[in-house]
Amino acid sequence: MSYSFRRNRHSIQEYVDGILREDRVMLSKAITLAESKLVNDNGLAEKVIERILPFTGDSIRIGITGVPGAGKSTFIESFGKHLTSLDKKVAVLTIDPSSQLTQGSILGDKTRMEQLSNDANAFVRPSASGDKLGGVHAKTREAMLLCEAAGFNVMIIETVGVGQSETSVKNMVDFFLLLLIAGGGDELQGIKRGIVEVADAIVINKADGDNISRAELSKREYQNALHLLSANDNKWQPKALTCSAMKQTGIEDVWKMICDYQQLTSANGYFKKQREKQNTQWMYDTVFYHLHQRFLQNEKIKKDLPDIEQKVRLGEIPAIDAARILLEMYHQ
Amino acid sequence: MSYSFRRNRHSIQEYVDGILREDRVMLSKAITLAESKLVNDNGLAEKVIERILPFTGDSIRIGITGVPGAGKSTFIESFGKHLTSLDKKVAVLTIDPSSQLTQGSILGDKTRMEQLSNDANAFVRPSASGDKLGGVHAKTREAMLLCEAAGFNVMIIETVGVGQSETSVKNMVDFFLLLLIAGGGDELQGIKRGIVEVADAIVINKADGDNISRAELSKREYQNALHLLSANDNKWQPKALTCSAMKQTGIEDVWKMICDYQQLTSANGYFKKQREKQNTQWMYDTVFYHLHQRFLQNEKIKKDLPDIEQKVRLGEIPAIDAARILLEMYHQ
Repeated sequence: MSYSFRRNRHSIQEYVDGILREDRVMLSKAITLAESKLVNDNGLAEKVIERILPFTGDSIRIGITGVPGAGKSTFIESFGKHLTSLDKKVAVLTIDPSSQLTQGSILGDKTRMEQLSNDANAFVRPSASGDKLGGVHAKTREAMLLCEAAGFNVMIIETVGVGQSETSVKNMVDFFLLLLIAGGGDELQGIKRGIVEVADAIVINKADGDNISRAELSKREYQNALHLLSANDNKWQPKALTCSAMKQTGIEDVWKMICDYQQLTSANGYFKKQREKQNTQWMYDTVFYHLHQRFLQNEKIKKDLPDIEQKVRLGEIPAIDAARILLEMYHQ
Repeated sequence: MSYSFRRNRHSIQEYVDGILREDRVMLSKAITLAESKLVNDNGLAEKVIERILPFTGDSIRIGITGVPGAGKSTFIESFGKHLTSLDKKVAVLTIDPSSQLTQGSILGDKTRMEQLSNDANAFVRPSASGDKLGGVHAKTREAMLLCEAAGFNVMIIETVGVGQSETSVKNMVDFFLLLLIAGGGDELQGIKRGIVEVADAIVINKADGDNISRAELSKREYQNALHLLSANDNKWQPKALTCSAMKQTGIEDVWKMICDYQQLTSANGYFKKQREKQNTQWMYDTVFYHLHQRFLQNEKIKKDLPDIEQKVRLGEIPAIDAARILLEMYHQ
């Protein structure tokens, strides 16, 4: 009986059944459970995910990143609406490492993508804010699997391109899209270095009105740069496109491009190989994350680390000495 | 008395004195000690490094990477000879993750840079080959510090740009240089993605004879790309240059550029800040490396990991379940 659980928990069977019958209230609750910091919840969530795992994987997973101001929400709304018009079922998970998961930010995100949120074939959900060591990513992966089991076949993972999340997101999606606006080279200010080179496509948004020619110019520049810089093992040549999310132009081409990518990489085996690699990566990430956390949460380490780190930073003690001291302290 | 040590070990004092009087035989022995896999040697090496630490840091540390065929050895030889002609003292550490540190590869590297090796103001040394988890890098850092204490004021760390070493090398140098040759966009085949974006400069080598105009064209293309792609917090605009290591043209400009970089980043505080950050990074890298190794070397883990990893890869068990199972096994 669900009422016997604290904070309205359900049984494993109830979660699984709810998700498989595409009940989005149950989906939401299951994601909340997976994101919970309570140990009991984690155990329960793991069991749910184990059960729904056979029903996952049958989607295209798209990572979208870009600086604030690139128009990510408007783009995702426009892109998502296009997809639902093609009878796709679209789930959007947004990761904002700077915000805590408060009622405020949930409402904020829903307001940001109002049309999509009210679309019967779409599901918009902010992902729990994690710590800088990567806690968020395991949760996002779980949320993604839960959405897939609930019948969503296009997954969109949105991040702000300024933090550490992007590389991790790259490691959990099939296609990684960088959204920019034309701005004479300044448009990458704030984007973490290295992101452009791992992008499968750069889309220049706000190509409308007076801005069209600037956006086209910017596109050509990126096209040249991508051509010069790319060295892929999936045979995909990263593309640069323009669009206007506001005017809803170019959105179809973005989707066509992603379909081309999926076709190419499915045919040459890269799609499957990448997914398999991501599974293994996920396991190691989780293991190493826990090892690091266990170390950093150790009482003795917590007490002495700030002082030792400061001394190492200033060159007062060698880093290897400090590491040895900390490890001895920890393993005592 | 040194003869009482196995494999001709010296006392801490002997190593320290030898290094500080710039005795390169003692320097070589100290690097060998630091690279040793014997636990006793590690303890001894740590004590030596602790003692010489006050005499380190007063150099410019340059990382150089590039595909095989870009002419790295010839470039470093030519560049190094130019520096010694300016009364600089140059130490070259080469990292080749694919080769074991055998007498053969040492001779190989010395032969590769014959003139520089015979220069009284230069020191060429292959760094121990490490494992893929990053063991080599701590050793390279130690070798670098030992060279600095022995009076070398330009450090060159050379890697082949195809493996995992580059990001780690980036984290231990002040300036990161990518050496390429003109080749119509194909020159980056084999270079790990993300390297171009973290480079402080791209130098197109072999700009001589028939190849000059192609190299110049390539330079301009990279210049545009770098301008477009860079977003630095050190106010340095990454540069593209051409040179011919064989004809010894353009080599001076590379050095001038690096001096400009040092001047700019010293003035704006970035140089010092980056060094401090690298110290801290080194400490955490070492700690986490040991935690990972301890886990991976655990007997129970070693026995079951291959099977579990295979199941995770094929999606037969969820990654988080596998991680939990492994962690429980480990902490039992």
